[in-house]
Amino acid sequence: MPGFPLEPGATIGILGGGQLGRMLTVAATELGFDIAVLTPRENAPDARVAAYAITAAYTDEAALRELADLCDVVTFEFENVPADALEFLAGLGCPIAPGPKALASTQDRVAEKTFLNALGIETVAFAQVDGPDDIGPALERLGAPALLKTRREGYDGKGQRWISTAAEGAAAFAELGGKPAILEARAEFVREVSIIAARGHGEQLAFYPVGENRHADGILKTTVAPAPEWERVQDRAEAIAAAILEDLDYVGVLGVELFELADGRLLVNEIAPRVHNTGHWTQDGAVCDQFEQHIRAVAGWPLGATQPLVAIEMENLLGQEVETWPDIAADPYARLHLYGKGEARPGRKMGHVNRLRPLPD
Amino acid sequence: MPGFPLEPGATIGILGGGQLGRMLTVAATELGFDIAVLTPRENAPDARVAAYAITAAYTDEAALRELADLCDVVTFEFENVPADALEFLAGLGCPIAPGPKALASTQDRVAEKTFLNALGIETVAFAQVDGPDDIGPALERLGAPALLKTRREGYDGKGQRWISTAAEGAAAFAELGGKPAILEARAEFVREVSIIAARGHGEQLAFYPVGENRHADGILKTTVAPAPEWERVQDRAEAIAAAILEDLDYVGVLGVELFELADGRLLVNEIAPRVHNTGHWTQDGAVCDQFEQHIRAVAGWPLGATQPLVAIEMENLLGQEVETWPDIAADPYARLHLYGKGEARPGRKMGHVNRLRPLPD
Repeated sequence: MPGFPLEPGATIGILGGGQLGRMLTVAATELGFDIAVLTPRENAPDARVAAYAITAAYTDEAALRELADLCDVVTFEFENVPADALEFLAGLGCPIAPGPKALASTQDRVAEKTFLNALGIETVAFAQVDGPDDIGPALERLGAPALLKTRREGYDGKGQRWISTAAEGAAAFAELGGKPAILEARAEFVREVSIIAARGHGEQLAFYPVGENRHADGILKTTVAPAPEWERVQDRAEAIAAAILEDLDYVGVLGVELFELADGRLLVNEIAPRVHNTGHWTQDGAVCDQFEQHIRAVAGWPLGATQPLVAIEMENLLGQEVETWPDIAADPYARLHLYGKGEARPGRKMGHVNRLRPLPD
Repeated sequence: MPGFPLEPGATIGILGGGQLGRMLTVAATELGFDIAVLTPRENAPDARVAAYAITAAYTDEAALRELADLCDVVTFEFENVPADALEFLAGLGCPIAPGPKALASTQDRVAEKTFLNALGIETVAFAQVDGPDDIGPALERLGAPALLKTRREGYDGKGQRWISTAAEGAAAFAELGGKPAILEARAEFVREVSIIAARGHGEQLAFYPVGENRHADGILKTTVAPAPEWERVQDRAEAIAAAILEDLDYVGVLGVELFELADGRLLVNEIAPRVHNTGHWTQDGAVCDQFEQHIRAVAGWPLGATQPLVAIEMENLLGQEVETWPDIAADPYARLHLYGKGEARPGRKMGHVNRLRPLPD
């Protein structure tokens, strides 16, 4: 097992299968690394461009051994990989970044908010919902409407329902599979912003300018970065990200979604221990993009420059919106990124476009 | 066989095996294409990241059939692929870009200069050398010293010798294998510049700002782009490139190396029917880099913007210079690109670094 920094030619493993793994693979390729992807999906977007592809369940021990043998470090493209898989890899002596603590603090929405509040970071008020009987008292305390979410595994608006009454809550709880849940108070925010941050070996920190995000049906639709009036929130967003990164002894890129309230407060909505959709603008807007930044961090390299060169309006191409690619391709200042996915199911992230704009003064 | 523009998900073939193929693969991946590489080299830099890799001689007919079956268009990463291979692919009905005429006009140094001069484009004076007896009279006419080169297959200073006498010429001719050669007059140039140009379907043209190049031992060492005082030569460089692209009914990216003389004239030194080392700066300096531009062109897409966002000093990392990667990685404004090659033989292109600089006024 070589030490860090990893030398070019080393192999980095990704528990992957999607577009984030694909864009990490591209970034690693440019730095001279090989990528090995482990994914249960056949012909996955990242596996098609990785030097090594292992098609198996994340918990397949033979596959994990093969990955550990190939790789000098292993990372992951989303926070819902089984913690058992990382523990098994760690048990084989395989370095993992970010570490298991980051995963444990973000896989469960109650654990995440508890962790954040313990650091003195504000979130919306919330209540743990183990069964339908918990919902009435929680609604009483948090106010209606409130958002019922599964504690684990939801993303892109999946696994969540707005509820206003205990009866609605009981029905929603059943619809969501009767699994452990969380009820979140509604945030009266004026906008959603996010910060992409990174921490390297040796505690080096880097922060991109915050972006402003719009969601539709629970799915990110656009990010404008740097956000309008980004300086108003930048320092506080960085302080929040830094506290999280340092407490988790984190290595890699982290995404932090924030609600900006009318009174100026910032609440953390969600953290993602990985490259993040709201950071895709960095591919065409910043000196070193979030994907290369993550690869640099997990390889033990110094971090790259986060300076913006242009402003970007990032738009996700969801489902059949990808069919507008000819119009996007015809705009020389629209930078198109497509994920090589086959079927354009409704709401599926098929690609994104970064439209170049002049930097704000 | 689908028509053009190719849809995302289509497969583009590369007769490849090196770093240019690798960087083309990365660019195609971001646009949602799959790449199929045919190369005689095992574990080649591009084959490792391509969706499909065929390891066989370029002239292996079964391999070429396999490539044609996989691909919607085939391109190449260097001009020394056998013309027979392209003809065989064309005979199978496989679209090829740039076309065979581009290859025929650039594989042979005598044919290339003859082609350029016929277009009214100046080159250094030259003489065809079929045997050692041709050298004396040629030296007489061109003046000494002059540069003896093989007509075919030289690159990076390989296959060439400066000679001052007929006896030196005869020895050099033998050293170069006794192959058909060309003798080139010495150009009294004040600097070498190059222009990267592209032509798409529908005759669309695009030009990057010229770069200024320095070579050492016949190998490109640095490119500064945009070149100092680039406006002085830009219009004429574009006119030269446009004439070449149009005459060849070219589709793809073309590199044109130019000598700028003290009297202001521009002579074409060499043209390359492909992405070019002197265009690597575009990866970190221009809106759309030359690799994506080439993929767009051969896919029949509109061309991207060539506008520079920052100035770049590109430096090739030759042989053991690649071992300086930790210093480069520690500079946040140095953009490192490594090719995933194993052995750092002297003079071998192992990677390059693009250093960001403010744009000239």
